[in-house]
Amino acid sequence: MTENLKRPNYQSMLDAILPLDVDALTEAQNHMDCLVKPLGSLGKLEDISVKIAGITGKVHNDLAKRGIVIMAADNGICEEGVSSSPKEITLLQAINMTRGICGIGVLSKWSSADLRVVDIGIDGDYDNAKIINAKVRRGTENFAKMPAMTRIQVEQAIEIGIQIVADLATEGYKLIGTGEMGIGNTSTSSAVIMALTGTPASDAVGKGGGLTAEAYEKKKRVLEEAIKLHNPNPKDPIDVLAKVGGLDIAGLVGCFIGAAYYRIPIVVDGVISIAAALAAERLRPGIKAFMIASHISKEPAYIAAEAELQLKPMLAMDMRLGEGTGCPLAFQMIDAACCIMNKMATFEEVSIEKDYRVDNRE
Amino acid sequence: MTENLKRPNYQSMLDAILPLDVDALTEAQNHMDCLVKPLGSLGKLEDISVKIAGITGKVHNDLAKRGIVIMAADNGICEEGVSSSPKEITLLQAINMTRGICGIGVLSKWSSADLRVVDIGIDGDYDNAKIINAKVRRGTENFAKMPAMTRIQVEQAIEIGIQIVADLATEGYKLIGTGEMGIGNTSTSSAVIMALTGTPASDAVGKGGGLTAEAYEKKKRVLEEAIKLHNPNPKDPIDVLAKVGGLDIAGLVGCFIGAAYYRIPIVVDGVISIAAALAAERLRPGIKAFMIASHISKEPAYIAAEAELQLKPMLAMDMRLGEGTGCPLAFQMIDAACCIMNKMATFEEVSIEKDYRVDNRE
Repeated sequence: MTENLKRPNYQSMLDAILPLDVDALTEAQNHMDCLVKPLGSLGKLEDISVKIAGITGKVHNDLAKRGIVIMAADNGICEEGVSSSPKEITLLQAINMTRGICGIGVLSKWSSADLRVVDIGIDGDYDNAKIINAKVRRGTENFAKMPAMTRIQVEQAIEIGIQIVADLATEGYKLIGTGEMGIGNTSTSSAVIMALTGTPASDAVGKGGGLTAEAYEKKKRVLEEAIKLHNPNPKDPIDVLAKVGGLDIAGLVGCFIGAAYYRIPIVVDGVISIAAALAAERLRPGIKAFMIASHISKEPAYIAAEAELQLKPMLAMDMRLGEGTGCPLAFQMIDAACCIMNKMATFEEVSIEKDYRVDNRE
Repeated sequence: MTENLKRPNYQSMLDAILPLDVDALTEAQNHMDCLVKPLGSLGKLEDISVKIAGITGKVHNDLAKRGIVIMAADNGICEEGVSSSPKEITLLQAINMTRGICGIGVLSKWSSADLRVVDIGIDGDYDNAKIINAKVRRGTENFAKMPAMTRIQVEQAIEIGIQIVADLATEGYKLIGTGEMGIGNTSTSSAVIMALTGTPASDAVGKGGGLTAEAYEKKKRVLEEAIKLHNPNPKDPIDVLAKVGGLDIAGLVGCFIGAAYYRIPIVVDGVISIAAALAAERLRPGIKAFMIASHISKEPAYIAAEAELQLKPMLAMDMRLGEGTGCPLAFQMIDAACCIMNKMATFEEVSIEKDYRVDNRE
């Protein structure tokens, strides 16, 4: 069903990603250090605005046009009872997202972000023109028994993610958020992070959407056994995604690659998103420089992935809804960061001597 | 100079503060629990929107009209060399704030918040109609040698803070932030928190605006000795403020009292603000129910005060500029919280069974 999408070759795009623009980074940091405040005192607002300069190549940025990509897919692993919700919710919520009434719908509208809901593997049919039909397959296999999908399907999903971002870039989008919908995807994400980092289930598996103690124990056992069964190669993220991943995660990997290629800042949000971010970083070390993390997730696998990526999320909202709901909130902080860079006065412009410009960095 | 401000009696206002509206709290929590998401999954966005209902008495709130009160004052303790900036910066930055080009100016404009810059004790003259002249005195005494001010002056400053909020309430403001400008006020705030909580200097004193190691040791010694000298009564916040506080802190205490009295949510921001919040809570236990904390400060005294108040700040921005710069960022999160309460669909409105409504609370 993806044939009508022209698919870029992800390998050649990985090779073509350039590092952050050092001149723009330097110029932005110098400007930031001339603003009328103690050095470093605006913390992450400073870091973010400088990073964005390195991504876009410009010191002053206006990222008002922004979108959130929702990758929606079903996961065969749900057969094992690892999720507290039935898998039919995936399609129902994908449809609700296009109606703007669920969490991500309300918050994205609030932050003036457009939603792109992508069916990259929902196991269900619908009649809704607002969902982008890029179904690679109808859900994945139950990876407790066999690999979730083939390598080719992982690569298809990655290239769909890249294409979605390519379209956003063409339409002038300047900032991208990553969201998802897929019952069972905290299990797939935990498995991917466990496989990539070697973290045991006891340190990587959370209760997801409110599991009972029994179901929680089962989830850990299912994931641990699946990894033992398939023995995915941690040095080969495509192998990991094919064996224990999901189509939504693979699609988001493509989004991260696309964002770096088209030099658009992209927001990492939640455990599914960071599983994809980690896989992307393993495919192309350094690609994390294009990522900005939204909120601190308490999901154990998130913490394991963040320990490697060191993206330093900026919001402590105790949110665990998923869907990408941290992105609209992070967009506001990113706006504030750009606003500081664009509008705050320098010491030269005001009548304050540089002795106020003490070094306040840690 | 404050004679022309009609001053409310703060004691009678403290007595007249009513608790949160239990009916509105219950109704708001019930509505929140019917929204199409796992219970509790939007974390602090849920808590904040419910709390606001308890403050205003209404489930649905629009807090678009918001202001930030900046209390500006000088501190005699600066004579001891506890600050890395000269005290002249207090007046210069207060003026810059009215020009909208410093940190709080840029960010408050970005978040559509109006600034009220209040001279509650600047030691300097100026010709600027945008600064509200409510000078209680020209800076405080050096509390290393004598009490910072009299009890009457503390009470004057508190009543000025109340009056500023009363004016905002009359003008229809629905949300208030607390900011400050006063070189040396991390010292006064640390001293107030030390005195109120019994925290020793080693656990309460931070490096403020970038002190050298030597100046840092001196700051700790100066504060410890001042508290020994004056022996402020921790059960009498007015005594603490008079002996080791500042006029900006006392003014903010008044803002917290006024906000609770007029039932307007008020944002706590940074160590100066939380010192005032703690003093207000000691004056009227339970008043913290009207407060929302913005960002996590790394200032040790902040952590000591927050340990008692348990306001649970929501932003991890590593900011340490002061001025109230966390308020505009928090305002955005508060908007998002109200937006969820006002616009998200209920399970009844969408075609999802309640089995998605699992209990996800911790």
